[in-house]
Amino acid sequence: MSEKTVPVLIAGKWRESKSVGTFQADNPSLGQPLPDKYPVSSREEMQEAVEAASEAATALRTTSGEKIAEFLEAFAAGIEQRSHELVEMAHAETGLAKAPRLKDVELPRTTGQLRQAATAARQGTWRRPIRDEAAKLYSFFAPIGPVVVMGPNNFPYAFNSAAGGDFAAAIAAHNPVIAKANTAHPGTTKLLAEIAHEAVTKVGLHPATVQLLYRVPSEVGFALVSHPLVGATGFTGSKNAGLKLKEAAERAGKPIYLEMSSVNPVIVMESALRERGDAIAGEFFASCTLGAGQFCTSPGFVIVPDTEAGRKFVETARKQFEGGTPGVLLGKSGREALTDAVAILQKNGAKAICGGKAMPGPAYRFENTLLQVSGDDFLKHPHELQTEAFGPVSLLVMSRNTAQTVAILEHLEGNLTGTVYSDTTGKDDAEYNVIEPHLRYKVGRLLNDKMPTGVAVSPAMNHGGPYPATGHPGFTAVGIPTSIHRFVALHSYDNVRPERLPEMLRG
Amino acid sequence: MSEKTVPVLIAGKWRESKSVGTFQADNPSLGQPLPDKYPVSSREEMQEAVEAASEAATALRTTSGEKIAEFLEAFAAGIEQRSHELVEMAHAETGLAKAPRLKDVELPRTTGQLRQAATAARQGTWRRPIRDEAAKLYSFFAPIGPVVVMGPNNFPYAFNSAAGGDFAAAIAAHNPVIAKANTAHPGTTKLLAEIAHEAVTKVGLHPATVQLLYRVPSEVGFALVSHPLVGATGFTGSKNAGLKLKEAAERAGKPIYLEMSSVNPVIVMESALRERGDAIAGEFFASCTLGAGQFCTSPGFVIVPDTEAGRKFVETARKQFEGGTPGVLLGKSGREALTDAVAILQKNGAKAICGGKAMPGPAYRFENTLLQVSGDDFLKHPHELQTEAFGPVSLLVMSRNTAQTVAILEHLEGNLTGTVYSDTTGKDDAEYNVIEPHLRYKVGRLLNDKMPTGVAVSPAMNHGGPYPATGHPGFTAVGIPTSIHRFVALHSYDNVRPERLPEMLRG
Repeated sequence: MSEKTVPVLIAGKWRESKSVGTFQADNPSLGQPLPDKYPVSSREEMQEAVEAASEAATALRTTSGEKIAEFLEAFAAGIEQRSHELVEMAHAETGLAKAPRLKDVELPRTTGQLRQAATAARQGTWRRPIRDEAAKLYSFFAPIGPVVVMGPNNFPYAFNSAAGGDFAAAIAAHNPVIAKANTAHPGTTKLLAEIAHEAVTKVGLHPATVQLLYRVPSEVGFALVSHPLVGATGFTGSKNAGLKLKEAAERAGKPIYLEMSSVNPVIVMESALRERGDAIAGEFFASCTLGAGQFCTSPGFVIVPDTEAGRKFVETARKQFEGGTPGVLLGKSGREALTDAVAILQKNGAKAICGGKAMPGPAYRFENTLLQVSGDDFLKHPHELQTEAFGPVSLLVMSRNTAQTVAILEHLEGNLTGTVYSDTTGKDDAEYNVIEPHLRYKVGRLLNDKMPTGVAVSPAMNHGGPYPATGHPGFTAVGIPTSIHRFVALHSYDNVRPERLPEMLRG
Repeated sequence: MSEKTVPVLIAGKWRESKSVGTFQADNPSLGQPLPDKYPVSSREEMQEAVEAASEAATALRTTSGEKIAEFLEAFAAGIEQRSHELVEMAHAETGLAKAPRLKDVELPRTTGQLRQAATAARQGTWRRPIRDEAAKLYSFFAPIGPVVVMGPNNFPYAFNSAAGGDFAAAIAAHNPVIAKANTAHPGTTKLLAEIAHEAVTKVGLHPATVQLLYRVPSEVGFALVSHPLVGATGFTGSKNAGLKLKEAAERAGKPIYLEMSSVNPVIVMESALRERGDAIAGEFFASCTLGAGQFCTSPGFVIVPDTEAGRKFVETARKQFEGGTPGVLLGKSGREALTDAVAILQKNGAKAICGGKAMPGPAYRFENTLLQVSGDDFLKHPHELQTEAFGPVSLLVMSRNTAQTVAILEHLEGNLTGTVYSDTTGKDDAEYNVIEPHLRYKVGRLLNDKMPTGVAVSPAMNHGGPYPATGHPGFTAVGIPTSIHRFVALHSYDNVRPERLPEMLRG
């Protein structure tokens, strides 16, 4: 067993990898490696996967939406059948609580997404057919080709490369997926790919519809996302890795959808604090420490009035952050990145009012941390002070007045979300109306009176936003059928004989 | 007059440019420069334009769709009022025929596009509102921000930076436009920008809604498309320039939509030739020499069976190409590029069966040219033999059989269009069914029995296609409202109080 690696899934077969290295995942609760050795795939193995995916793409073009739907539903059912195994594995690999988080929240969300994608595939609404009989012109969306999915570390199911939102959206549009596991949870990804592959076989889709690699050297990753046979890539992860993949893919003319980083500004207005400051502090604490703060939409940047009510809010929040037990982080590298990010914030004028350090002990933990900076000081280093600290950390920016709040907002980079807490009776509506336009165009999703960590799978959701939160402000990674439109090509038929048109475009 | 340059339009004022150089357009029919001197704008001038556009963008966000529509309609009416002047100027700058081409075809098409865009702006259908009452989530598309438009040389009105399809689509989504004129027709662009600006003033839009620069040094162009205050860019032109702009824009996370190059493969099947070979040769000749072959969708690559019927088709086409009088090209650089492209094709095995050379005389002309290569030889240099020759030039690839045709198609790069001519009674449907899937995914628009040069402005049109024809296969540059979706950002509202929602999203 010692030298054997966990098999990869290529061209419909689980087989030993022609690996160029191995790695092990950690159990972050114990700070120790888990036993299984996973292969790092070679360029040749990547090439094999892409060629098989290309064949699958050709087959899936003529596969019915009904059959795609059957696959997605069989996959969801398979996940439910093996939920115990999935929960044990994901807990070991991520340290996330078995319940409610993994079992009762994320797993049902994941199967729900797959079933919504099934409905979209069955109904074909994502194709948006247009018929112009007078001009004999017809158009609809068609699959874009093999989709590479690289998922993040923080959602082992819902954003998993082999089961999550990008996977579901890519498959719904009849594209095969090459899943590149997140190396923090390869075992969970393996289980999901197993279940997916069983469903592929059961339903009779092309055997290379779902393939799995665990890790590739970075140059092989660049070759993968820019491969001539690849249609597009969905990536969720760090800005550093994302920007390199973006450059490689775009140089080759390949669409790549990235969700990279976001500090998710929250503005708490004076009158809201006077009305319900303690309650808001509680919501803030709960949201910022949920999942040890490792959410893409964690409130990492809060604009607080530098007033008595504001300072009281800060003090209430500080007590809660100090009193809470920090959750286990997803991995050692995350803890290191947090230490680095907090150091950058401090170097640029932010002061820790609680926490600020990695915690001792075998488990990977970081203190619940609040940093504070004045609006004046923020405006001296606005870029550095938007460094994302991916964990239970938030920066409180103390604003002198509405004008300064607007100035702060004007310096904000693109974010996934932006939130405003205001008085429930509307007495600060005039101030809201001043602030809102400056926030609205910086974010994908605007919230009122509610922390941003809940991301409903709704057709009206936007889990996206202006660069550098994502690579394109017009697309969302969550929400069906909207998220499917990342993985399509527009096809027009001009004067094509009626009997040769795809069925959906016929009269 | 000698030293004064034609004024630029910045921040609502026509003013002398702070230029870093000057240029003149040519009259291609005479091979001589036209008198007016146009400025090359400096980085500072570009910066001024972008800052003014950013202010206009803010204003346009709250401008009603009705008002945007009124502007587009007033602009269209203004174009019609000054059509005589526009036709004279465009003819002088492009050599295109005054009638029917400029006056009766392109000008009405341009005003028609503006009026369709007006309807889309008025109705707001491009916003695609989605309401999820249960989740209190609402979404729609919003303007992306200032749009830079860089138009091509071949359509002085319909793709003009200050009046064409990209302009109309950007404005319809409430975005200001910074037009960078094509340097082959700066006078036409000036006239159009004048008419546009009059309409801006009349309707009372923000004065920087339309701005005009004629030319910028290339590093200023890169700075423009990657400017933090710019929303997106629409570019139509050469692959060489397009790829450089693409890299600059994408590195800064700015969407750029490019239409770059396309040889527009046409497959004429044996049975179609037996049935109506002479007629098809006539259609081919007419389409390939229309506008001196300077259409993005000109049939530059024809797969012909290497049979008696195929050789007869070639001979018929050759006679027509030889007998036709070559049109005037749009410019001297275009003639040079044609000479270079034909040399590349010849160097890689194609043989000229007629034409092949630039023509003597003051007017810029190139001989009507047919090149020929065997399927076997094509497959030796498939990349080089897809070099676009932008003019009355086409490459005939003689295919041995259906299998070879498929092999040729498999080597094709992305194209705007792909066309199949087959027997009208359907007796070669089996062969069509073999060929079609290999062509379909290489092109944006698939045609039957019709040359690709007609591009109807229809919601079902796709004037786009896989890279390198464009930068993204999911978008079209022609067709309303579809083309508008290039210039939008997705906005979601989560738990936002009903009275604070945009009107369109309220219950």
